[in-house]
Amino acid sequence: MITVGLDVGGTKVLGVAVDDQAPGVVVASRRVPTPDGGLGLVDVLGALVTELAGRAGPPAAVGVGVPGIVDHHGTLHLGPHLRHLRAQPLAAQVSALTGIPSVVDNDANCHAVAEHRAGAARGVAEAVMVTLGTGVGGGVITGGRLVRGAHGFAGELGHMVVDPNGPPCPCGKQGCWERYASGTGLGRMAREAAEAGRLLAVVALAGGDEEAVRGEHVTAAARAGDEAASQVLDQLAWWIALGLANVANILDPSVMVIGGGLVEAADLLLAPVRTHFAALVMGADDRPTSIVAAALGEEAGAIGAAALAADLVAGGPRPPG
Amino acid sequence: MITVGLDVGGTKVLGVAVDDQAPGVVVASRRVPTPDGGLGLVDVLGALVTELAGRAGPPAAVGVGVPGIVDHHGTLHLGPHLRHLRAQPLAAQVSALTGIPSVVDNDANCHAVAEHRAGAARGVAEAVMVTLGTGVGGGVITGGRLVRGAHGFAGELGHMVVDPNGPPCPCGKQGCWERYASGTGLGRMAREAAEAGRLLAVVALAGGDEEAVRGEHVTAAARAGDEAASQVLDQLAWWIALGLANVANILDPSVMVIGGGLVEAADLLLAPVRTHFAALVMGADDRPTSIVAAALGEEAGAIGAAALAADLVAGGPRPPG
Repeated sequence: MITVGLDVGGTKVLGVAVDDQAPGVVVASRRVPTPDGGLGLVDVLGALVTELAGRAGPPAAVGVGVPGIVDHHGTLHLGPHLRHLRAQPLAAQVSALTGIPSVVDNDANCHAVAEHRAGAARGVAEAVMVTLGTGVGGGVITGGRLVRGAHGFAGELGHMVVDPNGPPCPCGKQGCWERYASGTGLGRMAREAAEAGRLLAVVALAGGDEEAVRGEHVTAAARAGDEAASQVLDQLAWWIALGLANVANILDPSVMVIGGGLVEAADLLLAPVRTHFAALVMGADDRPTSIVAAALGEEAGAIGAAALAADLVAGGPRPPG
Repeated sequence: MITVGLDVGGTKVLGVAVDDQAPGVVVASRRVPTPDGGLGLVDVLGALVTELAGRAGPPAAVGVGVPGIVDHHGTLHLGPHLRHLRAQPLAAQVSALTGIPSVVDNDANCHAVAEHRAGAARGVAEAVMVTLGTGVGGGVITGGRLVRGAHGFAGELGHMVVDPNGPPCPCGKQGCWERYASGTGLGRMAREAAEAGRLLAVVALAGGDEEAVRGEHVTAAARAGDEAASQVLDQLAWWIALGLANVANILDPSVMVIGGGLVEAADLLLAPVRTHFAALVMGADDRPTSIVAAALGEEAGAIGAAALAADLVAGGPRPPG
């Protein structure tokens, strides 16, 4: 059975066609720009489905991952990048346009499903996925099933407050985990260190302008052996570990998968994250917890959406309600 | 079928006998002191089982709730009040002594099971239980099942860090949620307010000694209409709501049950907790979440332990692993 998975990002939509007999393998893919604010998004998704159907054969179902909170009916409630789509019944709209059964879920939930079915948490009963990018998303697997919650909104790990006096978050609170454990957080920590005069090599890489310092300058300097840059990455790793330990204290997974843009610095980050995690979680010695990089790369969200589509028509795992 | 549930507290052990046909109804009960540091605890538990069997009939199984982290085999790993029992295979020891199948779990998990089977979260698929006492415990229900996690350690909500610059916690970290959302937290906030000269009525109730101020003085003054005492309770309510919102962002329950000693102030706390929660959780308007007081009172932990015992022999819900 062929299904289509569509991953709606802030700037682009990635569509894939997948055969459910090999859930991690992409048969065809296509990337198009995300319409500004989501205006006309359903038509863009419909065109992607048509094109992928032409190349891979007609899909049995369509899955869509979107950045935002999505209820059990596939209605998007809050999506910061999709301001024109508040309270949009996306699943119903995609089904109506394409004539194909459709399911919509949060993008990080899709990512978690993909890593659980075919990636770094394959076959693991108790797993947590976090996507560390501009913001932080999450997906929780327990008893081998994705936790959607009572309203479909589970997995918003990034908006766990870890310091009520911390930086303001676009969500309206202060000190959400995603203000720290993200590319945004790394950039802020680096600029603070640069303004304190502690990041000369990094500032040089940014053209001499402290305000222009970005995460990639920090990782480049750290790879070149700059100690001050490594210290900023260690600070980032501590914040990542703090949130992971909070979640592990609540859910006690055996595997925690890290995806999103920051995974490109996994070679620098994973070791210090593991060290700090062991100091922050209860009873670390008695609960071996693997913290690993995502395996499926940037197609993971679309692959997971395609897997949810397969579940929709195959009567596989379904959310309650 | 009769089962026995034993709830091991810091100062006392409560034993109950329950008929699984009426899981919230206690047939017989008995309370004895907890041996200091847990030394000789297994013998105390065995004597309780014998006594309850004599009054209610021979139990088919025994369940024990203990304050600490407990693995899937019923071995206690960390228990601050039971310092003599580190790495004790309690379930195996109770089984061996009594000749009756036994199961051991964390006390807050037992409490959650009780409220889910017969209390304030009865029949709710997605629920979270928090016990706000001297510390904070928790239990998570998703898909109608208790989440035990990969090693049995899930539900340690109290050790979620909510302010890395906060007060030190006996666990070794700083700013764990239980430093705020507990009787301990209330006492500290009240003494800070008293030392700042803002709690004259409360200090009077404490005999004029700021250092002697306890939570019960604050609730008594608030009930008598003292505005400054109500402000301290509002501060406590905000911290309770912060942690509840963090957990709700992760798990999206429809019901959150509050138990433990602080539930005695539910009439003062629940309304402000609900108000602050709505401001702190993502998409509050779209996710009705009931925050309610526990229904089963101080026998809940023992009742839940008895329910886990019934599961053990009836082949009911069982943890993985």
